[in-house]
Parts: sequence; C-alpha cells; structure tokens
Amino acid sequence: MNLVVIGVAHTPYKEQQGTPIAPVFAEGAPASLEIFPEYRAGLADLNGFQRLWVLSWLDRAKGYELLTVPYRDTVKRGVFATRAPRRPNPIGLSCVEVENMDIEGGIISVRGIDLLDGTPILDLKPYIPKADAFPESRAGWFDQSLEVEKADDRFGNRGDA
Amino acid sequence: MNLVVIGVAHTPYKEQQGTPIAPVFAEGAPASLEIFPEYRAGLADLNGFQRLWVLSWLDRAKGYELLTVPYRDTVKRGVFATRAPRRPNPIGLSCVEVENMDIEGGIISVRGIDLLDGTPILDLKPYIPKADAFPESRAGWFDQSLEVEKADDRFGNRGDA
Repeated sequence: MNLVVIGVAHTPYKEQQGTPIAPVFAEGAPASLEIFPEYRAGLADLNGFQRLWVLSWLDRAKGYELLTVPYRDTVKRGVFATRAPRRPNPIGLSCVEVENMDIEGGIISVRGIDLLDGTPILDLKPYIPKADAFPESRAGWFDQSLEVEKADDRFGNRGDA
Repeated sequence: MNLVVIGVAHTPYKEQQGTPIAPVFAEGAPASLEIFPEYRAGLADLNGFQRLWVLSWLDRAKGYELLTVPYRDTVKRGVFATRAPRRPNPIGLSCVEVENMDIEGGIISVRGIDLLDGTPILDLKPYIPKADAFPESRAGWFDQSLEVEKADDRFGNRGDA
C-alpha cells in the first residue's frame, strides 16, 4: 500500500487554531489545490462538477487515541465516530465547492477548505449526489453537538483540521 | 505516509463483474465490515449514525490511466472526474447505511456495499449531512450518464468497484 502525493493544498491556515473544521464552515475563504504536472491530464472533465471530494494526508496529525474529544463536544467519543484528524490513517475527506478550474495549470480554486496550508493531496473524486447526498441521515452525537465551526489547539497543535 | 489496515470487508462480490458501482446500487445486499480487535474501542458512539464513510484500499485495482472510460459512459474521462477504482492512490470512498452495529465483536452490518470481498479497510468516518450532503450539486458528465449500476470487467478484472 504505497501512497503517492498528487498535489498540495494552498490555504489561509498555518496552524490548527482557527482552521474551519469542515469546508462548509470556511465562509468561502479562497483556497486552491495545486495538482502536479504529471497528474494534470486526469483533471479532464472535472469542470462540470460543482463539488469535489478531496482526499488528503493530514501530515501534521501525529499519533492518535481511539477515544477523543471532538471539537463540537465535551466528552470522549470513539475516533471513528468523529472527523478528528488524529486517527489510525490520517486521511482527510473534504467536500469542496469549485470556484474555478485551470486544468492546464493544474490549479483548482475552491470556496473554502478545512486543510492546513501545504497539506498533501492524495486523490480527487467527483461529488455525485446520487451516491453521496443523504440530507436526512441521522448523525448521532453530532445532531446535538455544540455550534463549533473552527478548530482550537486541543490536538496539541499537532492536529490538522 | 504509512497506512495501516484496520479491518476487512465481507461482501457477496468475488469479482468485479456484477459488483455494484456504488453502495446505492447494491439493492440492500447484506455485507459487513470486520474491524480488528486493536481498533474496536474506536467504534464507540458510531451507533447513532445512520450512515458511515468507508475508506478502503482497492487492492485488486492495479495500475491506472489518467484517462479512462467510466462504467456509466462510453468515452474517456479524466480519472479524477470518475470514481473508477484504478487511480494513482486506489482509495475507495463508500457511503454505507448501517444495519446493525456489534461494537464489542467489531462487526458492522451494512445495507449494501460496492467493495469486493476481502477489501482492506483504512478508515471509518461518520456521515454528517451538514458537511457531506449537497443533493443539488451539479455532477457534470454523470448527470447525463448511462443507467449502469453494476460493474463489468473493463478494468481487466483487475479493478475493484
């Protein structure tokens, strides 16, 4: 299982504190994804998609605990019931809205993202409502959670968001 | 970037041909996710979530092309504009509906999945509509695509679905 880095995220966030905990909380702050030249041909036909999944390697999230207090809560939860960055495989999953796509230059401008500047990108996938959108899905503890939208430094400034 | 395998998918699908191309096309066929003992504590609190994201390593998808003909189309598309299994990092993203959760035994029964039997699991994340559900999102070529719901062997029976 060998991973390759296909690009890098350029974002306004240099540290975990204050970073949005999901793209939807980023208030449209501009950010971009730079895809490296050798992978750019794979961006063809992405134009028509309003949103993308960005799979990233949360490189500043070191180690993990199986029980962790998520940003929007005050008690420990199983790590797989959270989107906390420190997890056995620190792979981030972000749904971003595309602002502009420069396929030749390998730059995808997005409306808001939840990644620290410089986060390596592993994959992009098209957002397909038929497979991905379930607006009525029950969401456990999150449905009663705190109205927190930005990260603090609870992961010791070693986390990502 | 070192990945660990946290579990394995048990599914009815032994080969790519006929495997649903997304969980939503699996018609509720029963499947389960077995999480290994050392990670089971991390499943706490998942009960309340109706759906989960399963990130998997598509181990039978060998190699990739940057332009590929997706299952629901007849022309080549950029691989990042498809959910095809053969991609630079063959990480699968499946939204599954939970049928039953045996946290102590590490078995999550799901209503339909799009993974071949034995696929290694990398991560589970809760499905959170606020962050993940955008039913009106435009979906490019997919919006005019063929009504294909099951894989064929176009990835040379070396793909996953």
